[in-house]
Amino acid sequence: MTAIRTIFFVSDGTGITAETLANSLLSQFEHIQFRQVRMPFVDTVAKMHECIQQIRMAAERDTLRPIVVSTLINPEVAAALHEVDALVLDFFSIFIAPLEAELGVRSTHAIGRSHGRANTKGYDQRIEAINFTLAHDDGVSDSDLENADVILVGVSRSGKTPTSLYLAVQFGIKAANYPLIPEDFERNKLPGSLEKHRHKLFGLTITPERLAEIRRERRPASTYASTANCHAEVEAAQRLMRREGIRWLDSTSKSIEEIAATLIQEVGINSKERD
Amino acid sequence: MTAIRTIFFVSDGTGITAETLANSLLSQFEHIQFRQVRMPFVDTVAKMHECIQQIRMAAERDTLRPIVVSTLINPEVAAALHEVDALVLDFFSIFIAPLEAELGVRSTHAIGRSHGRANTKGYDQRIEAINFTLAHDDGVSDSDLENADVILVGVSRSGKTPTSLYLAVQFGIKAANYPLIPEDFERNKLPGSLEKHRHKLFGLTITPERLAEIRRERRPASTYASTANCHAEVEAAQRLMRREGIRWLDSTSKSIEEIAATLIQEVGINSKERD
Repeated sequence: MTAIRTIFFVSDGTGITAETLANSLLSQFEHIQFRQVRMPFVDTVAKMHECIQQIRMAAERDTLRPIVVSTLINPEVAAALHEVDALVLDFFSIFIAPLEAELGVRSTHAIGRSHGRANTKGYDQRIEAINFTLAHDDGVSDSDLENADVILVGVSRSGKTPTSLYLAVQFGIKAANYPLIPEDFERNKLPGSLEKHRHKLFGLTITPERLAEIRRERRPASTYASTANCHAEVEAAQRLMRREGIRWLDSTSKSIEEIAATLIQEVGINSKERD
Repeated sequence: MTAIRTIFFVSDGTGITAETLANSLLSQFEHIQFRQVRMPFVDTVAKMHECIQQIRMAAERDTLRPIVVSTLINPEVAAALHEVDALVLDFFSIFIAPLEAELGVRSTHAIGRSHGRANTKGYDQRIEAINFTLAHDDGVSDSDLENADVILVGVSRSGKTPTSLYLAVQFGIKAANYPLIPEDFERNKLPGSLEKHRHKLFGLTITPERLAEIRRERRPASTYASTANCHAEVEAAQRLMRREGIRWLDSTSKSIEEIAATLIQEVGINSKERD
């Protein structure tokens, strides 16, 4: 049995930045097992001391030095963390100084900025996007499509819903999605309500084999999930998208993050200026 | 007019880690305006040269040195970036070396690890959580609640849906949510299907004033949105949750990230071990 090392995500805010950073780094050490412990809202020296207790206990149990990835704004709280025998990677202490020098100003040292409610405009926009995306999932509503940033199209179970939700939650993008169904293929035309939003359409396709696999989990032994039907639908959808000049990508071996990043680039959804 | 500085998120993967980290840093410089440019999938030296062209053009236009936040795994591509006159903050080059020393192994230098499909188990779990959460939004379905990691309860528009979706998308947590409605208050009991899942319940409350404001956007001049009704519902919901011993928090001035981080800690949803 190999020892498992513990990694702590310590933050005076939600800890989401620390966790994102740590996961990104750890993914480069694929053969090592880690136990992850989240420690959000460590915003006083007293709370940091409780936190240090837990780090010490992990060190004893694991007989391996823990790793601590932290995003701590308060310098006093951050300083307290350095009492502990662990590899401490503090994100702010490393990056804030060069940014202050470059920008010629001091940083605000305010806690809870990145995932708090400080940036109200951006925050409200994300909530609005989530509501919009939910209300326009799976072609449920045609209304208000002029406010969509993008409209995803594709056969049922090609990945439209998780991608749309990811776009809304992560980027505040209003993403409607619309299934392409046998009726559309028979007419060989887009659903009428999509015609005038052609420039916002983005297609997802998938290999028929993978599609059949996914559909079988939902409706085993159905025509819907049969390989023959999946082949026919995927082919018809691609023919339709080609005819209509819709950009598309194959979601088969892509994560929702990869699909989202590609889509943002291709559709040219502008990065918003922040202030 | 003050000059706007451009910040580039450069990555050989999706760029999502770079963007998250950069936003976290920039939130500490609240009086400075930035123009954000995403440059994902820069995975060859040739693509890096195109990218450098854009950085140079931004430098000329802004008459201010751009900032580049990067997560580049390929050392050759990363080296090419250092030709440009910009403040380059590369996460991997700074953090990977101390981690390699601590862990006593070389990192795999594999691209697309953190937001690609490499971690299939974790990835499938997140997609499953998104599907589960959608299928259990707003009390739509009672079935399968034994598989929920958490069940959010609260009055209509107290923040349950965006929080649930965030938990699923970001953390792969299966979050059902259930509205508390006047019928529940009259009986002064939980909906029957929730009784046996009491240990998974987590409540959201909100100030009546803020609730009325949110509801008025949806249904102006309705009883539903009236201040008197919002007061009565919030009070009844808190009375019910107190009676039933349900933990809750006030979502009024919290972001979905703050609600999610608090909930994970309070409900004690275990951090999963990664391998």
